[in-house]
Amino acid sequence: MKTFKETNINKKNNYGAEVLCIGSEILLGNIVNTNSQWIAEQLAILGIPHFRQTVIGDNPARLKEAILEASNRSEILITTGGLGPTPDDITMQVIADTFNTPLDQRNDILIDLKNKLRNKHSKLSQSQKKQSLVPKGSKIINNYSGTAPGIIWSPNSNFTILTFPGVPSELKEMWLQQAAQWLIRNNFSKKIISSKVLHFSGISESLLADKISHLLKGENPTVATYASTGEVKVRITAKGENLEETNKLIKPIEKELTQITGLKCFGVDNVTLEELIFKLLLKREETIAVAESCTGGGIGSKLTKVPGSSKIFHGGVIAYNNLIKQKILGVPEELINTHGAVSKQVVESMAEGVQKKFKVNWAISVSGIAGPNGGSKLKPVGLVNFCIKGPKTLITWEERFGSNKTREDIQKLSVLNALDRLRLSIIMDK
Amino acid sequence: MKTFKETNINKKNNYGAEVLCIGSEILLGNIVNTNSQWIAEQLAILGIPHFRQTVIGDNPARLKEAILEASNRSEILITTGGLGPTPDDITMQVIADTFNTPLDQRNDILIDLKNKLRNKHSKLSQSQKKQSLVPKGSKIINNYSGTAPGIIWSPNSNFTILTFPGVPSELKEMWLQQAAQWLIRNNFSKKIISSKVLHFSGISESLLADKISHLLKGENPTVATYASTGEVKVRITAKGENLEETNKLIKPIEKELTQITGLKCFGVDNVTLEELIFKLLLKREETIAVAESCTGGGIGSKLTKVPGSSKIFHGGVIAYNNLIKQKILGVPEELINTHGAVSKQVVESMAEGVQKKFKVNWAISVSGIAGPNGGSKLKPVGLVNFCIKGPKTLITWEERFGSNKTREDIQKLSVLNALDRLRLSIIMDK
Repeated sequence: MKTFKETNINKKNNYGAEVLCIGSEILLGNIVNTNSQWIAEQLAILGIPHFRQTVIGDNPARLKEAILEASNRSEILITTGGLGPTPDDITMQVIADTFNTPLDQRNDILIDLKNKLRNKHSKLSQSQKKQSLVPKGSKIINNYSGTAPGIIWSPNSNFTILTFPGVPSELKEMWLQQAAQWLIRNNFSKKIISSKVLHFSGISESLLADKISHLLKGENPTVATYASTGEVKVRITAKGENLEETNKLIKPIEKELTQITGLKCFGVDNVTLEELIFKLLLKREETIAVAESCTGGGIGSKLTKVPGSSKIFHGGVIAYNNLIKQKILGVPEELINTHGAVSKQVVESMAEGVQKKFKVNWAISVSGIAGPNGGSKLKPVGLVNFCIKGPKTLITWEERFGSNKTREDIQKLSVLNALDRLRLSIIMDK
Repeated sequence: MKTFKETNINKKNNYGAEVLCIGSEILLGNIVNTNSQWIAEQLAILGIPHFRQTVIGDNPARLKEAILEASNRSEILITTGGLGPTPDDITMQVIADTFNTPLDQRNDILIDLKNKLRNKHSKLSQSQKKQSLVPKGSKIINNYSGTAPGIIWSPNSNFTILTFPGVPSELKEMWLQQAAQWLIRNNFSKKIISSKVLHFSGISESLLADKISHLLKGENPTVATYASTGEVKVRITAKGENLEETNKLIKPIEKELTQITGLKCFGVDNVTLEELIFKLLLKREETIAVAESCTGGGIGSKLTKVPGSSKIFHGGVIAYNNLIKQKILGVPEELINTHGAVSKQVVESMAEGVQKKFKVNWAISVSGIAGPNGGSKLKPVGLVNFCIKGPKTLITWEERFGSNKTREDIQKLSVLNALDRLRLSIIMDK
C-alpha cells in the first residue's frame, strides 16, 4: 500500500507524526505493544499522517537519541510510558535534557497528586513528587484515572511532543478527552484517511492480486492485499477532506472489486463467515447441525459465536472416535472398513446421520487427518473430506491443505473452508 | 526492569539487535504488531541484546533511511514483512538498493516456488517470480509453509540483516528451525537472559501479586505477573553467563512460588491445560467425552488440539437446542421444565447421558447464558453451570462470570474454567 505521497523527507520541513513507546518490558518481549496500534488508529481518524513507530528501553542515552531523531523528521512526537514514580521512569527527565530545558515542579500537579493519594499516605514520598516535574513551559494533559499526567510541549517552533502513560486505559482516556481536541484545534488534523476492508475466501493472495493488478497501482484510493491463514483481505484506503469525499472515492473501487471477484468476496469490514451463515439461515427459517471429526467442535464453536445462534444452530456430534461415527451417527461399519474414516463416503454418511437425528434442514460434516501423525502416502496429513447436505444440496469434496502445515493450521483451515462452502451452498440452494 | 547495562552506543562498534517491521497496515493501526513481541522474546532467550524496534510503511525512501540508521547502530537487523508478491512488497529491493547491491534471481527459489504452486498454476506469473529475487550473496532462510523465503545477508562486516515474512506462523517456523541455530553458531548470543513462565488459574492477578509481593521486588531474577482472560502468568527472568547459571537463579524462586500457590499453578512455559489433561488421562488409560451447550464445541475443539488426542477423546454432543439435550443425551424433559436448561440438575443429566452413550470414563458438561440476550434477574448473562463425572468423581458447580462480560469472553472463560476443573478432578480422583 502506498500512502501519504505528499510527504517529503526534508529535514527542515517537519511533517506528520511518530509514535515512541518507552519501556524495557517491550524490548524483552514481556508485553505486546498494543498502544502503538491504538494511537495509529486514532491518528488515521484525525487524518494526521503517521510514518514511524519506535520502541526504546528505559535507557537515557538511547531515548535521547530517538527523541532528537524524531525532532529532525516529524512535526509531532507521541510518547507512551516512563511517566511512573520509580527510578526507571525517565521520560520527562530525558525530554527536558534533550532540549536543555529545566524541569519545573508544578504546584497544580502536586495538589492533584495529594488528592489522589489522600487515603493512602499523609505525605508524598520523593518518588511520588517526581510525577509533578515537567519541562518548563509544558501544557498539562490531566490523568483522571491514574497519577501520572502527560504534557504537550513544543521545544521548538516546528516540533511538538505529547506524552502519555503506558497504561492503555489512561492513555485512551487522556487522548480522547483532551489530546485529540488539542490536535484538531491546533490544525494538526490534515486530510481524512478512511478505509474499507473486503474479505475473500477460496482464492489465493497472488491470484487475487493478478486479477486486480490494475487497482493495486492506484494512488487515491490505494488498494492493497493481505493474507492470513485461510483468508485474503483487500483494503481500500482513501484520503479526502471529509467522509463524504472518501466514501465517493472508495465506492467505485469496491464495486469493481466485487464485480471481478463475485462470490469469492464474502463481506466488508468486520463481518465473519459465521455471521453471514446465521443471517442466510435466519432469513430462510432453516436450521443446521454439525458432525465433526478432525475439527473436534471447531465449526460448532464458530457458529455459536454469533449472538442468537440458537435460532439456527441445533447442535451436533463430535464424532472423533470411529465407534461414535457408527453408533451415534449411524455410519455403517463396512463403509469405514472399505473406504476409511477419511473418505467422501463416510462424510456423506455422517452428514446424513446428523441431519436425520437432529431433524435439521442443513448438515455439515468433516473428517480428516490433522497430523502430525496418522498420514499415509495415499491419505497424507492435511487431507480433509467434507460434506454439506441441504434441502436441495448434497456436495462432498476433499481438500489437501498440505502435510507441511501444522495441526493447528489444518484444523483452522478446515473450519474456514467448511464455513465458506456452507455460505456458498446456502446461497446456491434454490 | 533494568537490563543490558553493559551496552555502549559507540557508532563504530555496532552492538545488539534491532527489529524493523515493514507495512503500512501497521502504521494505519489495522493490525497489532505481535511479531515484534515474539522476536523480542526469542532474542531474550538467545541472550542477544535488543535495543530498538521500528515500524516503517511500504515507502522506499523512508525504509532505506531506517535500514541505514540501523546499520550505523546495530550488529543485527531483523525485518518482518514486505516479502510478498505484490507491488507494495518492497523489502528485498530496498535492502539491495541501500547497499548498492543488485538483486539476484535464484534458481533454487524458483524451483521451490514452482513446486509449491504446482497444482494451481502451470506457469509462474511475474509477481510470483519476484519472490525469487534476493540481494546477491544472500543466504536463504527457507519458508516451508509459505512462498516467500527470507535471507541472511551481511552487506558489511559488522552488520547482518535477517528478513522474515510478516505472516506470524511462517516467521516463527523459519526462526525456530533455521535462524536461531544460525545466530547461535555465529556467536551472536551474548550474556544469557533466561526466563520461565508459570501458569495459574483460579486466582486473580492482584491476589497472586499480594501473596508473592516479596518476590516481585527481586533484581536477578526479576519476577513479574501478567493477566489475560481466564489466566494469570508469572515470569521469572534471570541473567547469567550460561543456562546453568540462570537455571540456578530461577529454580529456588520457582519452588517458592509453587509452594505458596499449590495446585493453582498448573504448569510452566508453553504448557496448556488440554495437554495436561491429555497426559493425565493417557497415564490412567481413561477416556473422555463432552456435552456442550453454551460453549458450542469449544471444549472439544481444545481437547483435539493435542496431537494424538484420539487416544483419550472419543467425541461429544453439542446440545445447543433443548430438544437435543433430551433426545440425544436423554435429559428428562421435566428436569428442563422444572429447573431450566441452565441448572445443576440439567448439566448433571447431560454428563451422565454422554458418559453412558459414549462409554467413556469421564464426561464434562456445560450449559450457560453467554448473552448478550437471554439473561434474567435470577439467571443473568454470564451464569454457567458445569458438571464433571469420573470414575470416583461427581461434581457440579456454577460460575457467574458477570453480565458485563462479552459473549466471547464468557465462552472463553467457560472453556478454560471447565478444563482447569477437569485437570484438578482427574488429579483428585483416587
